[in-house]
Amino acid sequence: MSPVSPLAPDSFPELPAVAGVELASHAAGIRYSDRDDVLIARLAPDTTVAGVFTKSLCTAAPVDWCKRILSGGTARALVVNSGNANAFTGSAGESATALTADLVAAALGVGADQIHLASTGVIGEVLPEDVLSAELPKAANKLVASSPAAWVSAADAIRTTDTFAKGATATTTSGQTIVGIAKGSGMIAPDMATMLGFVFTDATIDPTLLQEMLAVSTTRTFNRITVDSDMSTSDTVLLFATGQSAADPITAGTTEAAEFQDALDAVNLDLAQQIVRDGEGATKFVEVAVGGAESDAAASTIALAIANSPLVKTALAAEDANWGRIVMAIGKAGERADRDSLRIWIGDVLVAESGKQAPEYSEELATDHLRNDNVHITVDVGVGTAEATVWTCDLTHGYIEINAGYRT
Amino acid sequence: MSPVSPLAPDSFPELPAVAGVELASHAAGIRYSDRDDVLIARLAPDTTVAGVFTKSLCTAAPVDWCKRILSGGTARALVVNSGNANAFTGSAGESATALTADLVAAALGVGADQIHLASTGVIGEVLPEDVLSAELPKAANKLVASSPAAWVSAADAIRTTDTFAKGATATTTSGQTIVGIAKGSGMIAPDMATMLGFVFTDATIDPTLLQEMLAVSTTRTFNRITVDSDMSTSDTVLLFATGQSAADPITAGTTEAAEFQDALDAVNLDLAQQIVRDGEGATKFVEVAVGGAESDAAASTIALAIANSPLVKTALAAEDANWGRIVMAIGKAGERADRDSLRIWIGDVLVAESGKQAPEYSEELATDHLRNDNVHITVDVGVGTAEATVWTCDLTHGYIEINAGYRT
Repeated sequence: MSPVSPLAPDSFPELPAVAGVELASHAAGIRYSDRDDVLIARLAPDTTVAGVFTKSLCTAAPVDWCKRILSGGTARALVVNSGNANAFTGSAGESATALTADLVAAALGVGADQIHLASTGVIGEVLPEDVLSAELPKAANKLVASSPAAWVSAADAIRTTDTFAKGATATTTSGQTIVGIAKGSGMIAPDMATMLGFVFTDATIDPTLLQEMLAVSTTRTFNRITVDSDMSTSDTVLLFATGQSAADPITAGTTEAAEFQDALDAVNLDLAQQIVRDGEGATKFVEVAVGGAESDAAASTIALAIANSPLVKTALAAEDANWGRIVMAIGKAGERADRDSLRIWIGDVLVAESGKQAPEYSEELATDHLRNDNVHITVDVGVGTAEATVWTCDLTHGYIEINAGYRT
Repeated sequence: MSPVSPLAPDSFPELPAVAGVELASHAAGIRYSDRDDVLIARLAPDTTVAGVFTKSLCTAAPVDWCKRILSGGTARALVVNSGNANAFTGSAGESATALTADLVAAALGVGADQIHLASTGVIGEVLPEDVLSAELPKAANKLVASSPAAWVSAADAIRTTDTFAKGATATTTSGQTIVGIAKGSGMIAPDMATMLGFVFTDATIDPTLLQEMLAVSTTRTFNRITVDSDMSTSDTVLLFATGQSAADPITAGTTEAAEFQDALDAVNLDLAQQIVRDGEGATKFVEVAVGGAESDAAASTIALAIANSPLVKTALAAEDANWGRIVMAIGKAGERADRDSLRIWIGDVLVAESGKQAPEYSEELATDHLRNDNVHITVDVGVGTAEATVWTCDLTHGYIEINAGYRT
């Protein structure tokens, strides 16, 4: 187990109960021997669900499963296992997902098409059906009402290489509660970040609106982070609304809907940034803000070119204000930028303008900024007004350590 | 100075004289204090020239210069300096390129628009004009006829982080000679690989045909390599034809043209693969061959997604047959692939087929293959007949070492 990331939050947040959500964490021994590796969340009747999934063309079996049942719009349970992604496992993988859903459906007395699934971990190994058959009923017997303690266990059970558990919460003025947990550390790239995120609310929202809200929120949060540009076969974000809140149902276009969207975005952004803070080997949390671009898409492409550049990321790891590499990354992004009106800042330090190093540039001040755990790179590409911000981490020996030995 | 790459060729090749090419290497002290850092190549009258340059939108001053004068189609000299890229240096950079050309033009008694330029090294620092003025005339005084020894010095003078000098040669049955030298180690990605390549031939070829041949050759060679996916502001390949061979001029569509193209491709491929073998921190030379794709472009995109994946590259460094990461990379490429007819080989070992691990797969045999310095990954994505091969290296602690301390 790697040591906890130096960028981790001081502590796991106090996550409140969400009415209509029960949780069970269980050590099924699918891969890990000494920790919980299965999470079951039971959801109240009439819970609605929305989902966003990896754009990988080689999706894992549970992703295929979720996509198929999502159109029903309702959910009675979520089942997650960590350590084995059940990806690229052919018909045996499909069989394992069906068995998982059947076992939990039977234990809870609901339909299998109400059971949403997610798996992360090693690709290409089949989930052991005998273990599922023996252990999932035991896990279902452990369900307890959601609570701060139960959320801690839940967030722990879904970890793989994560060095800390990830949770976030928000409430609306109408009294609705949102709680999210996530896992992710490597294989993180936008569309989607390589990750699992599960968000629960007691709000009452129909599945169509819920899906719209989740899709919008994802573009603002989980799709704005990158650790290593690699996209997983398993990325999944599911949002469950139990409808147990006393507040009125939320409908499209209302103030309440806007407020809920903001609260949802806050939870998802918090989770997304925690994933970057747990980036494999990360020692710096890096915000890259690009403005002055021709379009939002161009701004995003340029920001990601900077955020994904191995040369930029290794320079940041070394606290080296080697801004030429930022110029290089902007140049390679392939989006319009004006070399001669381009401006680059490291922290508040103007580094480059008018096609060359800024006259007042102080490498000492720029380096001072880079000594912080939180680093800001700002770029104005000088051709328009569109902007985008993304978050990433540096590239260190730790990344190599972790990824050259993951399976052993 | 880093130790020589373990993937380096045993020795620098014996590069023959090319009639009409004189060489001078000189220690100008622009950045390095104890080695040659300037190369001048004088070219016979009527030498034709072709060039291919980085697609970066933040090109270095010498790239802008070369693009401007290339339309003339002729060249009397090449001037290269190492250690300072003269990139993102504004009007001072333009002034330094003009001064370099003027100084060498005056020394050789030719027009400044016949002087082709290239610089690599640190971005954002202005070339010192006093040093250029003092040292370039001295360099021009050292010109000697090209010879095996002079090529060694020339290939050495253009190195930056390269751990070995790179050269290659070929001859045609008509008796024409081709000699190429190159530099490149990090910031290597296709379009163009981050590199400088200079190829000289005594063949007689008009500039239009020469440009066509170079453009075609580049797509087959320098644009098929990647070390770290980063694209330089300085990538330049120049091909000079002195016309000093006794053989007839080469004209389009002839057997001689085809033979020359093959010889040119062989030189360029040799140089391109040497650059990968000098990839920063590389311990494995990796060939990724993708077949069964919908189009050549799709095959190339998938091959590069595999070759650029940090997770694939760290697994290769660890000699870990973690083929799930290859599946991940194929999935993220965004090009059509059929998960259920996809096949993957590590060396000769069939790893995956029919949407899962191959029944006869032996991890031991796959790992045996990965213990070699030269690794082959072959993928058939099962949807068409198009194919593409690219070359890359693994991602190791060495890459981090080199790039976290380059400027210090």
